[in-house]
Amino acid sequence: MNIKENELDKNFNHKKKMVKIKQARDKLMKNKNQEKGLIIVHTGLGKGKSSSAFGMIMRCIAHKMPCAVVQFIKGTWKTGEKDFLIKKFSKECNFFVSGDGFTWDTQDREKDINSAKIGWDKAKEYILNQKIRFVLLDEINIALRYKYLDIDDVTTFLLKSKPFMTHVVLTGRNADTKLIEISDLVTEMNLIKHPFKKGIKAQPGIEF
Amino acid sequence: MNIKENELDKNFNHKKKMVKIKQARDKLMKNKNQEKGLIIVHTGLGKGKSSSAFGMIMRCIAHKMPCAVVQFIKGTWKTGEKDFLIKKFSKECNFFVSGDGFTWDTQDREKDINSAKIGWDKAKEYILNQKIRFVLLDEINIALRYKYLDIDDVTTFLLKSKPFMTHVVLTGRNADTKLIEISDLVTEMNLIKHPFKKGIKAQPGIEF
Repeated sequence: MNIKENELDKNFNHKKKMVKIKQARDKLMKNKNQEKGLIIVHTGLGKGKSSSAFGMIMRCIAHKMPCAVVQFIKGTWKTGEKDFLIKKFSKECNFFVSGDGFTWDTQDREKDINSAKIGWDKAKEYILNQKIRFVLLDEINIALRYKYLDIDDVTTFLLKSKPFMTHVVLTGRNADTKLIEISDLVTEMNLIKHPFKKGIKAQPGIEF
Repeated sequence: MNIKENELDKNFNHKKKMVKIKQARDKLMKNKNQEKGLIIVHTGLGKGKSSSAFGMIMRCIAHKMPCAVVQFIKGTWKTGEKDFLIKKFSKECNFFVSGDGFTWDTQDREKDINSAKIGWDKAKEYILNQKIRFVLLDEINIALRYKYLDIDDVTTFLLKSKPFMTHVVLTGRNADTKLIEISDLVTEMNLIKHPFKKGIKAQPGIEF
């Protein structure tokens, strides 16, 4: 068999396989016809928890779905995404900064608790506003982990008061198991390789 | 001990702990002073591979770092991120669509190979253009997995021809181990819970 025939064979077999995959996929997708506002969690030690939520905000703006961000913890950190949304898309996306910085920078538990509570009040306001279709609670898992916010308050509110079609995304490492239990979509970002280990610092575009 | 004293104790212990964390962190960060264009991989079966790369593009635009996207495979799929970038940020971000759709939709290996090769040529052009600081090769891992592109061609080019300060992000499940070996930052997105399993369809803002 020469090379050309071999290629033709490969093309033919590929088509047979893809027809089968397509049939299986169509069957699978036939039952996926419901729409629902999701409770989404991004957790794990890897990168991409906040950035993928901001990627979804890009999608929401494109689809003309009004959205909102409450940024816990990171507060004073100057990030590209905050700049971008506040300067260019303040109509499309509400942006509220509640944190005063990382816990190890503020070193002030009382102040951190107060900031977290103000952030959570704003979060509830955004979520209850039915015009807003997508609410990102960035790094809220950190505030929950330090018990600045009560996990039962948060899960009860999401389960009982979130409008049916509103999506809420909660990010941050060490997501509470109670939160994972009530969520619809949970992704764990795992670190396989990280350049910090090789002395590379946090860089614009990548980490902030 | 009454409740108020207990809280004061907690605040005091928190501060002591945070001062220690801050010291450890400062020491750790002191050696992280290098900047370098990174080879970044987002892989795994979970969500967030493409969306976090698009979140990084939001960061790049904010930092006035010109960027580019080559979209392999997803091609004809109408996504929010494509609309958003093409309509609002065509100056800041080049966008090239090389794929004709999912492999199970095209069912045409020869056409898929041709599209992948055109995409890879464009990718090389973007990467070699030193004005462009960040290049996203979305879903290229799929093209590599089906051997539409040669893994050695891709890794050799990235290692030998990528300008030192240019970041390149490669997304898609089943990243080749040869690619992981040469990368600086690798994140695996794992699926913990997915609403597809409960009959919820792909929704705007979330999946596209």
